[in-house]
Amino acid sequence: MDREFLKSMGVSLDLALEAREIVRGETGQEVPGVRVDKETYDHASVTTVYIEDESAQAIMGKPVGKYITIEAPVIRENDPDAHRQVAEVLAEQLKKMFDLPMEANILVVGLGNWNATPDALGPRVVDNCLVTRHLFNYAPQSLQGGMRPVSAIAPGVLGITGIETAEIVQGVTGRVKPELIIAIDSLAARSVDRIATTIQLADTGINPGSGIGNKRAGINQETMGVKVIAIGVPTVASAALIAQDAIEKYLKNTNAQAGVTNEAIKSVLEPFGGNLTVTPKEIDTLIEDTAHIIAGGISMALHPEVNPDDYAYYLH
Amino acid sequence: MDREFLKSMGVSLDLALEAREIVRGETGQEVPGVRVDKETYDHASVTTVYIEDESAQAIMGKPVGKYITIEAPVIRENDPDAHRQVAEVLAEQLKKMFDLPMEANILVVGLGNWNATPDALGPRVVDNCLVTRHLFNYAPQSLQGGMRPVSAIAPGVLGITGIETAEIVQGVTGRVKPELIIAIDSLAARSVDRIATTIQLADTGINPGSGIGNKRAGINQETMGVKVIAIGVPTVASAALIAQDAIEKYLKNTNAQAGVTNEAIKSVLEPFGGNLTVTPKEIDTLIEDTAHIIAGGISMALHPEVNPDDYAYYLH
Amino acid sequence: MDREFLKSMGVSLDLALEAREIVRGETGQEVPGVRVDKETYDHASVTTVYIEDESAQAIMGKPVGKYITIEAPVIRENDPDAHRQVAEVLAEQLKKMFDLPMEANILVVGLGNWNATPDALGPRVVDNCLVTRHLFNYAPQSLQGGMRPVSAIAPGVLGITGIETAEIVQGVTGRVKPELIIAIDSLAARSVDRIATTIQLADTGINPGSGIGNKRAGINQETMGVKVIAIGVPTVASAALIAQDAIEKYLKNTNAQAGVTNEAIKSVLEPFGGNLTVTPKEIDTLIEDTAHIIAGGISMALHPEVNPDDYAYYLH
Amino acid sequence: MDREFLKSMGVSLDLALEAREIVRGETGQEVPGVRVDKETYDHASVTTVYIEDESAQAIMGKPVGKYITIEAPVIRENDPDAHRQVAEVLAEQLKKMFDLPMEANILVVGLGNWNATPDALGPRVVDNCLVTRHLFNYAPQSLQGGMRPVSAIAPGVLGITGIETAEIVQGVTGRVKPELIIAIDSLAARSVDRIATTIQLADTGINPGSGIGNKRAGINQETMGVKVIAIGVPTVASAALIAQDAIEKYLKNTNAQAGVTNEAIKSVLEPFGGNLTVTPKEIDTLIEDTAHIIAGGISMALHPEVNPDDYAYYLH
Repeated sequence: MDREFLKSMGVSLDLALEAREIVRGETGQEVPGVRVDKETYDHASVTTVYIEDESAQAIMGKPVGKYITIEAPVIRENDPDAHRQVAEVLAEQLKKMFDLPMEANILVVGLGNWNATPDALGPRVVDNCLVTRHLFNYAPQSLQGGMRPVSAIAPGVLGITGIETAEIVQGVTGRVKPELIIAIDSLAARSVDRIATTIQLADTGINPGSGIGNKRAGINQETMGVKVIAIGVPTVASAALIAQDAIEKYLKNTNAQAGVTNEAIKSVLEPFGGNLTVTPKEIDTLIEDTAHIIAGGISMALHPEVNPDDYAYYLH
Repeated sequence: MDREFLKSMGVSLDLALEAREIVRGETGQEVPGVRVDKETYDHASVTTVYIEDESAQAIMGKPVGKYITIEAPVIRENDPDAHRQVAEVLAEQLKKMFDLPMEANILVVGLGNWNATPDALGPRVVDNCLVTRHLFNYAPQSLQGGMRPVSAIAPGVLGITGIETAEIVQGVTGRVKPELIIAIDSLAARSVDRIATTIQLADTGINPGSGIGNKRAGINQETMGVKVIAIGVPTVASAALIAQDAIEKYLKNTNAQAGVTNEAIKSVLEPFGGNLTVTPKEIDTLIEDTAHIIAGGISMALHPEVNPDDYAYYLH
Repeated sequence: MDREFLKSMGVSLDLALEAREIVRGETGQEVPGVRVDKETYDHASVTTVYIEDESAQAIMGKPVGKYITIEAPVIRENDPDAHRQVAEVLAEQLKKMFDLPMEANILVVGLGNWNATPDALGPRVVDNCLVTRHLFNYAPQSLQGGMRPVSAIAPGVLGITGIETAEIVQGVTGRVKPELIIAIDSLAARSVDRIATTIQLADTGINPGSGIGNKRAGINQETMGVKVIAIGVPTVASAALIAQDAIEKYLKNTNAQAGVTNEAIKSVLEPFGGNLTVTPKEIDTLIEDTAHIIAGGISMALHPEVNPDDYAYYLH
Repeated sequence: MDREFLKSMGVSLDLALEAREIVRGETGQEVPGVRVDKETYDHASVTTVYIEDESAQAIMGKPVGKYITIEAPVIRENDPDAHRQVAEVLAEQLKKMFDLPMEANILVVGLGNWNATPDALGPRVVDNCLVTRHLFNYAPQSLQGGMRPVSAIAPGVLGITGIETAEIVQGVTGRVKPELIIAIDSLAARSVDRIATTIQLADTGINPGSGIGNKRAGINQETMGVKVIAIGVPTVASAALIAQDAIEKYLKNTNAQAGVTNEAIKSVLEPFGGNLTVTPKEIDTLIEDTAHIIAGGISMALHPEVNPDDYAYYLH
């Protein structure tokens, strides 16, 4: 299946790792202008995809930049120790993406809709982040060493606010004047296996058409005037892709590929319209756990000397 | 695909309508011992499947009884007027299933887990039902004509209580001594199209292995000693079935059925393990709307002379 | 009791009506520069207090402007018809406060903390408002006549965002460029009777130190560059004021006022510290009902030709 | 103020400690038949009141039995370490109240209304308790040493179910046949200071008229046929009592008691009707934190060899 076909089904590939798999599936070799690194941790494997030039950008359908993917199936398990280790991996990887002094002002943006469980990850991260900017302004005596001024907003979604998310973030950025924005978003995955097991960091920010809400305007260096790191977690998958995956695997298993056409697949998938998007039935727990991991990882990265056991003292 | 295969994948067919489709798909003709009636409303079509004898019971995998299916895709739309009409259809069909005097004591049981959105339908119906038993006991002056004594419980799920749901309902039934139990449950559908568009009423109650929670013991005449009407709404579907559906449609479209074996399909589906169950990403709204329709329909059926506009006065 | 004393207890008087009562209590006559109008409806009485000059402003501790207070104890009752009538009264009074063409762009701001029930009124109003600005931009075909472009945000509170609410609203206002802001806030009342029974509209916006969150910066014409109408509902009361009220009433009933000093009262109230703030135990229902009334009233005022029965079609 | 007067105001004294204070205030000496012990911990002080005979029962208005009160103002602070220590104190005190073998079957009952924040403590404790009875039945391999079979229910409230809570608990008890019931309830305190700072354990169970919901039937040895330990936490206070407290303190401070009559106080309090019940505006956080402490304390007491860090593995 090629990317054009996916696009025609209204499906975006939010994960660089999945985009690379598809491109490689088509060509059978590493994509030119793409470089890949791998690291392994106890509970997570980390793959960094560098899209290094414009030709790679065109092939991959993603801007030049660095995409770090943390794969940690343990997020789906009831294992607080392992979750904390995943948060530490996230913190370590996130720190590689910025180089800022301790006094740098950072804005966390939790995208998504707090009233729709599968889209509530961003707002839930905001609720759990260690926010300190107001303490710098009003209660500096309550700060300890190793803290940066951090603020956070959950701008809501177009259907609730009537305002493009990017406009709200631009407005707040104009006031808060951060040196860095970290934007959290719920993504659509190609495969249900990735839901709540994969965390992608991208130094290219958030680009139009990505995420559950399919933003019309990006939240990136270009639109915000400041570097934007995107943290995305797949929380939904397209029913059309589950179906398509199954057909391809079946044909492969039965050596029946000969003569398969996109048209034939498309006629099967049409009823799904690319629009039916599904999420696991355990989504409430998955969002809760993932939000804690992401908020923990961000807090560790931004306030390097604060013991995570002390976060609760600073939370509202 | 036959029922044995589904069973081997760990999938139950909660809807009699879907079971009939599969059996007819296998045999190409109406199932012996099964009778079907159809009615059409503005916003809903109603199919009644009668399983009339033990041979039909064996073929269909469902006990002898009456299964009414209301198909109303409008439930998924933002249309309060249409929702009210669906509630009226539900009330009308529900009334056909019992014949009780006005003083009959009725217990509504909302099965499911209030902490998991796709499984919260039952508890949400309990929250919205017009419950009156305590008024008969303690505040008869607040009653109006045309009300029956109705009580309601949300017994929770095994993972939270450590107690089989059926045991809790038996215990409460032993105290409340209802003449009828109406049990609401979230179901698994074979097709995602049915999620939050289909309501099934069954005068056979709830039987082991059905519903999202896969009860180990039934909630039916046999276990409760009183008639049980089950109201079920599909809120989830098995990812394996979405995949399997797609393969079958593809093969049909391409006339490639020759030589397809269950084994080949099964090897594709194995990674899904029959366990990955999905729900639409709009599930919060779907549960909220469906709970109001079901609670409205039950209230209209049980309190025939109360104007639905007056329910709010009696709600907590 | 005088205002200085209240201030020394850390209590703000958010309602102009209560401020007037206290001033009149001190002087025994109408405050100079203050004019009062009264209207009566079936389920509500409306008192308009005009603070007409700077001397009245100084005495009342509230800026020159118009303060409309709707008193409707029926809000606390389970009576949807009456609630709708209160929403209509609110719409009628709100319309008196602005004179704008149909194409005027209006921003609704729901102040408060969605995670704290008594402070969640503003965000809940945003969830229930008929928001249309995005339809004007992206789906004009779905609009009907008599609709204005309305947007809405819930900016959160300082403890969660680290950003002054006024800064966020300024940022968004700079982007959305509304002709009018309507800001909803939870207030502190002097008397528990006023909780969820009183709605205050003020054409002076929201001023520093008011509301539950005790804003440091105002949201008003001066800070936003555009007219701000504040809609406030008391949802909490100070325990100190309940205590103080009781002492005063007792002394009055027993004719024992002679020799009562603020110091004596203050020594009793000290343990409460002016900080213990309470809310009725039914607060969940009160916030839910009040949010629907306020959102309904605003929607009726801003979209004069839309039938309230049709709002659901436009809600997310 | 005497107990008769409180009763006439519709106020129950749920805490034995408060009842004793009032009786001693009337008589100026220890109540005959009442014995008191005190212990002190880092973050909590523990007072045990033994009501030893029927005359003491009559004077105190509480049945013969043992009442342990844990006073721990630190519960209101954001201090997870201290909260864990309070949970350990609770576990230690709770263990003193029962003497059961490891195989004893225990039922936790979380009273209250999950839809009303100040009354949601019981259901929230049920959500967080380490429940194991189903593992003994269906998955014994997942158990570790030092676990007892524990089950839990949240029976709801009369207004939602139409059934007396005691009837539901009797029904479930008849099925589960526990050797001990632990019932958690939200209480009304005489003083706002006690809200979410005091935990009372009583080996007399829950008696009619106590708690927020003012049960009509008790949940105790007599009604359940098995020992019931009640764990109560004040989450609300009567506005009438706040007022009355203030008047008494004022009169004491000003030496003006002469000639004060209950009638004079009552005329002041009448508008409050004994019915206006308030809760702190931080109630959402208070319930959340208290529920974790109580669930932790119960789990430590019932499963003595399980490390609290491992609870998460067993939670749903």
